[in-house]
Amino acid sequence: MQQLIERIRAEAIYLGNGIIKVDGFLNHQIDPALTVGMGHAFAELLEKHNVSGVTKILTAEVSGIGPAVATGMVLGVPVVYARKKQPITMHAGVFSAEAPSRTKGDMVKLIVSPEYLGSADNVIIIDDFLATGQTLAALADIISQANAKLLAIGCVVEKSFENGRDHLLSLQVPVFSLAKINIINDDLHIS
Amino acid sequence: MQQLIERIRAEAIYLGNGIIKVDGFLNHQIDPALTVGMGHAFAELLEKHNVSGVTKILTAEVSGIGPAVATGMVLGVPVVYARKKQPITMHAGVFSAEAPSRTKGDMVKLIVSPEYLGSADNVIIIDDFLATGQTLAALADIISQANAKLLAIGCVVEKSFENGRDHLLSLQVPVFSLAKINIINDDLHIS
Repeated sequence: MQQLIERIRAEAIYLGNGIIKVDGFLNHQIDPALTVGMGHAFAELLEKHNVSGVTKILTAEVSGIGPAVATGMVLGVPVVYARKKQPITMHAGVFSAEAPSRTKGDMVKLIVSPEYLGSADNVIIIDDFLATGQTLAALADIISQANAKLLAIGCVVEKSFENGRDHLLSLQVPVFSLAKINIINDDLHIS
Repeated sequence: MQQLIERIRAEAIYLGNGIIKVDGFLNHQIDPALTVGMGHAFAELLEKHNVSGVTKILTAEVSGIGPAVATGMVLGVPVVYARKKQPITMHAGVFSAEAPSRTKGDMVKLIVSPEYLGSADNVIIIDDFLATGQTLAALADIISQANAKLLAIGCVVEKSFENGRDHLLSLQVPVFSLAKINIINDDLHIS
């Protein structure tokens, strides 16, 4: 997605240890027009790979919500965001899986209520980053717990140097990213 | 907003202690079409009250993001979401304020980076609930710390019985809500 690649080139800052700061348009501030563009880009990739019949989009709070909602607008399907802390409005008997948080330095539990994800659902996962792939694998695990069907995974930014894509091979679904960042000798290579 | 009022009438569940569950379209699952409608409804209310020149929308993670991004799409301005935990991508010297979380049972710190909110900004706050008004007051405090100007506050659901609107009077800006819920003898009254 050319507009995104240019934005990353203009604004992304490498903080070391594999951490890339894109707070200006993805993780703290959201550019709505760019985000709508992400929704269209994911929809085009799905069509190109003959992925159809999506009934639900699953993401994880917080930074996946913008791109997921934009994709939901384009596809006309609801978005469920996995919670990281179980609110008192959620009953027991939830689906959950754990993944490490790089930017917050601890394990996070992802929680989804069976009220909004079930065996009739054909699901795509949309999230902000594909890094080690562990958050995405946790979301895929939740989809499996719900006996729903995972159709594809879409990420805004893929950190190629972490090889998270390999971690997701066993899911046997297409994995899309809208921009790739590689790090060679502390320099960002964006494509 | 009639579509929202009907959705609340159809789905909202009163859990006692002032807690209203609207997880099906606001706090866990998002209906993109309904959310886009919220964006248009806020834009219309701003126009009706002659609020113009908005440069930024401020919300708090997590459930404010959907309605805030939808409003940002309609107005063509960026959205900043206050973080509840300071990520390692954020420098020291942030703006922050505290507010209690009803559904999670503890105090939460709201954090905004000076990189994305400053004295040139004319800001509207968009959030999911107006309950006691304390989260909104904390966001207004952050806007004040940034020497930015608060123009208006918009909430998706106002829990009238908590009188949060009174708590915001001193801010001297218009406060909008798209639907109001009152509780009388454990019955929800939605308007």
